[in-house]
Amino acid sequence: MRDLGEFGLIERIERLAGRARSAGVVLGIGDDAAILRLAAGEDLVVTTDAAVAGVHFRLDQEPPRLAGRRAAVGCLSDLAAMGARPLAMLLAFALPATTAAATALGLVRGVVHEARRAGAALVGGNVTRAREISLTLTALGAVRRGRALRRDRGRAGDRLFVTGTLGRSALERARGRVRAAGAARITAGRRLAGVRGVGACIDLSDGLAADLWQLARASGVAARLDPARLPLPAGFAAACRRAGHDPLRLALAGGEDYELLFSVRPSGPGAGELGRRLGVRVTEIGRLERGRPALRGIPAGPRGWRHF
Amino acid sequence: MRDLGEFGLIERIERLAGRARSAGVVLGIGDDAAILRLAAGEDLVVTTDAAVAGVHFRLDQEPPRLAGRRAAVGCLSDLAAMGARPLAMLLAFALPATTAAATALGLVRGVVHEARRAGAALVGGNVTRAREISLTLTALGAVRRGRALRRDRGRAGDRLFVTGTLGRSALERARGRVRAAGAARITAGRRLAGVRGVGACIDLSDGLAADLWQLARASGVAARLDPARLPLPAGFAAACRRAGHDPLRLALAGGEDYELLFSVRPSGPGAGELGRRLGVRVTEIGRLERGRPALRGIPAGPRGWRHF
Repeated sequence: MRDLGEFGLIERIERLAGRARSAGVVLGIGDDAAILRLAAGEDLVVTTDAAVAGVHFRLDQEPPRLAGRRAAVGCLSDLAAMGARPLAMLLAFALPATTAAATALGLVRGVVHEARRAGAALVGGNVTRAREISLTLTALGAVRRGRALRRDRGRAGDRLFVTGTLGRSALERARGRVRAAGAARITAGRRLAGVRGVGACIDLSDGLAADLWQLARASGVAARLDPARLPLPAGFAAACRRAGHDPLRLALAGGEDYELLFSVRPSGPGAGELGRRLGVRVTEIGRLERGRPALRGIPAGPRGWRHF
Repeated sequence: MRDLGEFGLIERIERLAGRARSAGVVLGIGDDAAILRLAAGEDLVVTTDAAVAGVHFRLDQEPPRLAGRRAAVGCLSDLAAMGARPLAMLLAFALPATTAAATALGLVRGVVHEARRAGAALVGGNVTRAREISLTLTALGAVRRGRALRRDRGRAGDRLFVTGTLGRSALERARGRVRAAGAARITAGRRLAGVRGVGACIDLSDGLAADLWQLARASGVAARLDPARLPLPAGFAAACRRAGHDPLRLALAGGEDYELLFSVRPSGPGAGELGRRLGVRVTEIGRLERGRPALRGIPAGPRGWRHF
C-alpha cells in the first residue's frame, strides 16, 4: 500500500467498479455520495455486514479474491432474504499500510465479482488505514411496496422450508479447508416474494438453529424441526464421520450456508411446486407451532455462531 | 463485552436506536435488512464512512460519546454536501471482546445523538469482534430528482464560497485538545440545493486545499483562492501563533471542518444573500478559472490529510 497509496487504491477500485453496472444508478463512485433511483412503487432495502481478517476470513488460508467473494455473498444474502432486487453496494475498506497491493486488489476483485453476478453496481465506499484488514459492505436493493419478505411474518401452522443443502461450508471449515464462496439466493428470494402464502423468511448465515430461533422469536411462535428431513449434501454424513464431526450438529450450527429458510401457510404450495417456481431444490423440514419462541425436535445446545 | 455479549449489545443498540426516528422508515432494526420509502420524485443518496480507533479518534483523549458523534458528523456531512434530506443510518460496529460496555455504548450514543439531530433513524447495522474498535457508518438521504449538489458541476467563472469558518478542528488537534463534534451542514445543504446558479459543492473533511482540489479535478477547471479572505474563527491567528502553528496552513490543510465549499455562477447570488438564505455565515474565497485542474493563489504543499 505504501507504493499504491490511498488515492492510487481508490483509482484502482473505481476502475474495477466499472465492471459491475446497474440500471438504477444515477451517480456512482466519485462524489460525496452515490445517487440511486427506484422504479415507481418500489421501496428501498438496505443492509450492512462486516468481514474482519482473522474472524471471518484468514488470508493465510484462502486467496484474497475468495475472501472478498465470501464477504459480498454474506451481505447480498440479506437482500435475498428480503426478496429484493440488488441495485448497488458500497465498500468501506480498512487496511494496514503494509498490506500488499495484490492482497488489497484481490479482496476488491472478489467483491466486484459477486456484485456483478447479483446485478449490483459498486457505487461508493471509503478507504482507511487500520491495524487489521476488514471489509464493511453495504448492499442496497429494491422491492415492490409491501412485498418484502420478513422474518416476523411466521404463524403457527406454517410449514418450514429450506433451499439447497445445509452444512457444506461448516464441514469445509471444520476440516480446515478453503471454503467455496457459494452464492446468495437472489433469484430464489425474488421469486419467493411473489409466491402466495409465504410467511416469514430469513437467510442462513449463523446456522439453521440460530437463524430459525431468530425467525421464531421475531414471529412469536415455536418452531419444530424434523432432523431426519434436513437436506444434506451427497456424501456429507460419511465425510463428517471421517473427520470426527457430528453431521447433525454441523447442519444445525455450522453457518454460512446462505440458503433461504422460510415458512408457508397451510394453503400455500408444497416443496415440489416451490422448487419449480424458485428454480432450486426446496425441502420441507418442520413447522411453526403455538407457544413461546423455542426450538423443538432437536437436541438443545447448538445455537450457532457467537462473536463474544 | 464479555458480560454484555454480542446479542446483549445488539439489544442495547436497538433500544438506543428508538430515540432517533424518521418518517421514511418502513422497517427498522431487527430483520435481515431495513426498508425505506422515498417520496414521489425523490432519488436516494447513500454514502459510507469509517472511523477507526487510533486513526480517527483516540479513546484515551476523548469520551466515547464524542468520538461517536464526530464519526456520525463526518458521514452525515456527505449527505449535506449533496443537498440531501437525511433518512437513516446504519452502524457496522467492530470491537474487541475486552471493550468495556460503557465505551461501546458511549460510541453508539454519540452516533444516535447525531442521527437524531439530523432527522435520521438508526435502521440497522452489524456487530463483530475485531482487534481494534471501529465504526463504519452508512448514511441514506433523499433528494429531489436532478437537484442533488455535485462536485463536478463547477465552471470557469464561478465564484467560490464557503460556509462558517475554517481551521478550528485542526487547531484543537494540533494543540492535543479534545475536538468538538461540530455539526454537519444539513440545513444549509438542503437550502443550497434550491438556490439558482449553484455550481459544484463538496464538504470540507480533508482540508480546504485537498477538497477544493477534488472539486476542481471533478469539474475540470482550475481554482484560485484568495488566502486573505479565508474565514477564520475569532482569535484564531493569535492562538495558532501561540501554539507555534501557521494559521494559513491549518486553515488550508487541517481537515474536519465539515463546512460546505461551493461554486456559484456569475449570475447567481453573492455572499450576503447566500448567508441569509442558508442561515449561516457564507464567505467568498476565490473563483474557478480556465485551465487544467490546479490550485492557484496559495503556497504549494498543503494537500490535506493522507492515510498512507
